[in-house]
Amino acid sequence: MTKLADKTTEVIPSQGYKLEEQELSQLLLQLNDWQIDQSTPEQQLVHGFKFRNFSEALGFTNQIGELAEQADHHPSIQLEWGKVTVRWWTHKIGGLHINDFILAARTDQAFEEKGQ
Amino acid sequence: MTKLADKTTEVIPSQGYKLEEQELSQLLLQLNDWQIDQSTPEQQLVHGFKFRNFSEALGFTNQIGELAEQADHHPSIQLEWGKVTVRWWTHKIGGLHINDFILAARTDQAFEEKGQ
Repeated sequence: MTKLADKTTEVIPSQGYKLEEQELSQLLLQLNDWQIDQSTPEQQLVHGFKFRNFSEALGFTNQIGELAEQADHHPSIQLEWGKVTVRWWTHKIGGLHINDFILAARTDQAFEEKGQ
Repeated sequence: MTKLADKTTEVIPSQGYKLEEQELSQLLLQLNDWQIDQSTPEQQLVHGFKFRNFSEALGFTNQIGELAEQADHHPSIQLEWGKVTVRWWTHKIGGLHINDFILAARTDQAFEEKGQ
């Protein structure tokens, strides 16, 4: 099976395919501790990453920025001292698309490589 | 009168000086449309800056990061496509310190210089 992070993101039509609850649960298992935030108007995939200081957190923000630009799909990133919270979702379809899981997996991958 | 952005930030003792309502109102006048968010556990100075795309927003995030590192005082920055929301406050004193206004003024200055 192709690793989630290695999958190609799809071009999203304005009426794209929104994932169902069962699919969401299965895809979540392929990520490291991401949650689905149900409190926002549109479901979002969210995860907080910890760092030793502000500078490392900013470095990671830039890495995610690069991933986002490459895929032309952009998250919301909250940057604080020692912490980066990343949220992926697809505004066009008002929820979660496979692309969000692919980008979340790439975010995990970037974080793991940083620690090596 | 020294411009707010040119003032030197103070070292904050653990029992630092928290600004009073009247001082907050006067200092707010020296900033460009910042708001005081009262909905957070600690008062925060907040302002959203708009950009043409994600890349410009990320560039501004890095500029603010540089200001923060120079002053050793760090905000919360929310980065989205075309928008950066900056929040300054001083956790040590549980609210707003003159340093937060100085850094907010420097944030304004960085934004203005970007537009030139």
